[in-house]
Amino acid sequence: MHFRIQKDYLVRGVQDVMKAVSSRTTIPILTGIKLVADESGVTLTGSDSDISIESFIPIEENGKEIAEVLQAGSVVLQAKYFSEIVKKLPKEQVELEVGSHFMTRIKSGKSEVNLNGLDPEEYPHLPQLEEHHVFHIPGDLLKHMIRQTVFAVSTSETRPILTGVNWKVYNSELVCIATDSHRLALRKARVEGRNIPEDFRANVVIPGKSLTELSKLLDESEEMVDIVVTENQVLFRTKHILFFSRLLEGNYPDTSRLIPNESKTDIFVNTKELLQAIDRASLLARDGRNNVVKFSTLDSDMIEISSNSPEIGKVVEEVQCEQIEGEELKISFSAKYMMDALKALDSTEIKISFTGAMRPFLIRTGNDDTIVQLILPVRTY
Amino acid sequence: MHFRIQKDYLVRGVQDVMKAVSSRTTIPILTGIKLVADESGVTLTGSDSDISIESFIPIEENGKEIAEVLQAGSVVLQAKYFSEIVKKLPKEQVELEVGSHFMTRIKSGKSEVNLNGLDPEEYPHLPQLEEHHVFHIPGDLLKHMIRQTVFAVSTSETRPILTGVNWKVYNSELVCIATDSHRLALRKARVEGRNIPEDFRANVVIPGKSLTELSKLLDESEEMVDIVVTENQVLFRTKHILFFSRLLEGNYPDTSRLIPNESKTDIFVNTKELLQAIDRASLLARDGRNNVVKFSTLDSDMIEISSNSPEIGKVVEEVQCEQIEGEELKISFSAKYMMDALKALDSTEIKISFTGAMRPFLIRTGNDDTIVQLILPVRTY
Repeated sequence: MHFRIQKDYLVRGVQDVMKAVSSRTTIPILTGIKLVADESGVTLTGSDSDISIESFIPIEENGKEIAEVLQAGSVVLQAKYFSEIVKKLPKEQVELEVGSHFMTRIKSGKSEVNLNGLDPEEYPHLPQLEEHHVFHIPGDLLKHMIRQTVFAVSTSETRPILTGVNWKVYNSELVCIATDSHRLALRKARVEGRNIPEDFRANVVIPGKSLTELSKLLDESEEMVDIVVTENQVLFRTKHILFFSRLLEGNYPDTSRLIPNESKTDIFVNTKELLQAIDRASLLARDGRNNVVKFSTLDSDMIEISSNSPEIGKVVEEVQCEQIEGEELKISFSAKYMMDALKALDSTEIKISFTGAMRPFLIRTGNDDTIVQLILPVRTY
Repeated sequence: MHFRIQKDYLVRGVQDVMKAVSSRTTIPILTGIKLVADESGVTLTGSDSDISIESFIPIEENGKEIAEVLQAGSVVLQAKYFSEIVKKLPKEQVELEVGSHFMTRIKSGKSEVNLNGLDPEEYPHLPQLEEHHVFHIPGDLLKHMIRQTVFAVSTSETRPILTGVNWKVYNSELVCIATDSHRLALRKARVEGRNIPEDFRANVVIPGKSLTELSKLLDESEEMVDIVVTENQVLFRTKHILFFSRLLEGNYPDTSRLIPNESKTDIFVNTKELLQAIDRASLLARDGRNNVVKFSTLDSDMIEISSNSPEIGKVVEEVQCEQIEGEELKISFSAKYMMDALKALDSTEIKISFTGAMRPFLIRTGNDDTIVQLILPVRTY
């Protein structure tokens, strides 16, 4: 293998595939990045066997030459060293050549690095997915949907299925649901498809970690991302990147009954003011008792948020609301869950719907039903 | 105690004194910040008993009202909670009032926080220094002098005296020296004084940690900092801050004989090019053998920097020099020490003077003798 390449593109490609490389893998070759050069360009691959990322650098893009492949071939290079070196090379042009025993020479200006390479034949093959059904979704929307749900997955391995986000496709609609059994985040969107039968259904659970890494690779652009779902793998494909993730096995709990249809108290309030008041109220509560704050309606348009940590002190916050409809209310909940939910809702005003102090409550944005955040209260009153 | 104050000033003052507060102190009251209000303003104090910082907020500055003291008094508040709360208060105006049992109410807008305070009488008194001799030095110069020396102190407690920086004053000159016995940094500057006798000498050792914290408090401004040195304390005074540090006990080694007066090889080279070449050469060497790189003259104006880690690979870097004078040379040294030294020298071009492969070498900037960096080589050739 022998090629010349623009450093910027190589750096970007290496950074992308590095997101899948773990230094704590039990399979030694997976600490490396696989490079393959052929007449069309250079392909980089990184994998921790749960997530695999392939980044393709074409020989030219929009008429601009990016790479020149002098000899096709492949090699695996230690990701840790290779990624550091590429970033620090002195010139815009990089030359990479594999010699005997996979010894790889990387040249740029007056800098010459020789890295011991590994046999690319040892590197595991990426999953080959049958592309019967392909969905499309704009990259920026996908990125938002991930951000608005993935924070609510469980971090505990007691119920492994809850460490993933449940993705359901039916009737051209994608529904993403995450819950750690104390709170739930739900986000819906329309998806387009290719060759999708009328009655097509998909119901899979994608590891939260995979979605978090995928989200880092996505730009805030409307460019379409292709999604291929199979029984045990999901593939996301952008212009130059293939992102594979294994799926979690098992049945995701039915969450539909959790979401109340009616409410007894509805509060309309400015998101930022509520968020900041809860943030302050929780300052003294963070070390003790699970970071719980008390929330109560004061009169027609005022709420009080408070916390009390006898050893440290107490905080009382009043927040003016747009409107309070329905019954008076006193309730307690995790300040962290509430702040997570408020940050996920991209809206200046939000609506909180309570059905009593012991029942889960909903946080939504005005009349938009594509996003719902649900939190279970804590018994303190 | 009861006062109103502009939040910005309170936040800044708290941030300043927080640099002295440690959560790992054995004296519980030192986890707090002491507040004292009187007719002139509000004074904040933080201390870990090695470093003490006092920040003064006047009731007015340049005709602008900053604070209004309604009742003089004092209290000690938990630094961790107080500092977080002040930062997050909603309005520009903050009101603070101490009630019975030092319970302290902090109000801002519709936010009210009550913190359990501690008895200020329990708080240790700051050292009272006799100001016989006071030196002055511009704040920005002091900040630079610290940055250019403190990195070279020892991090090991085997010889505690080397964890400090040796400050010597004689003949209106301040000399700062730091060494961990493998390298040495020296920086000199003129200082002005008040009531300084002709034959005045000072020779103290200031803990590196104290200087690092002091440096964070100093602005890049020419405003003068007063320095008072006593037998076991040093005080730095800026417009609104008093910074006390204890001194290290013991005799600092005489380093003057370490610095060679002659040289056999002098190399003039661009700082950034050398720094980047060494950075790359050291990439593969970091995990093994103390991060050592080899350095050799190639011909009249070229040097080669290389490293070899048999398991990973090797790097060879060539750097074009301005000039090489004297004998040919092959030497090995710690890449980290060299990079630290080069970063400390604020100069685009530097001169390295060697007196053989086994002797310490000097790195300087042109003909400026106020700063010297010295490194001991490592035997590998």
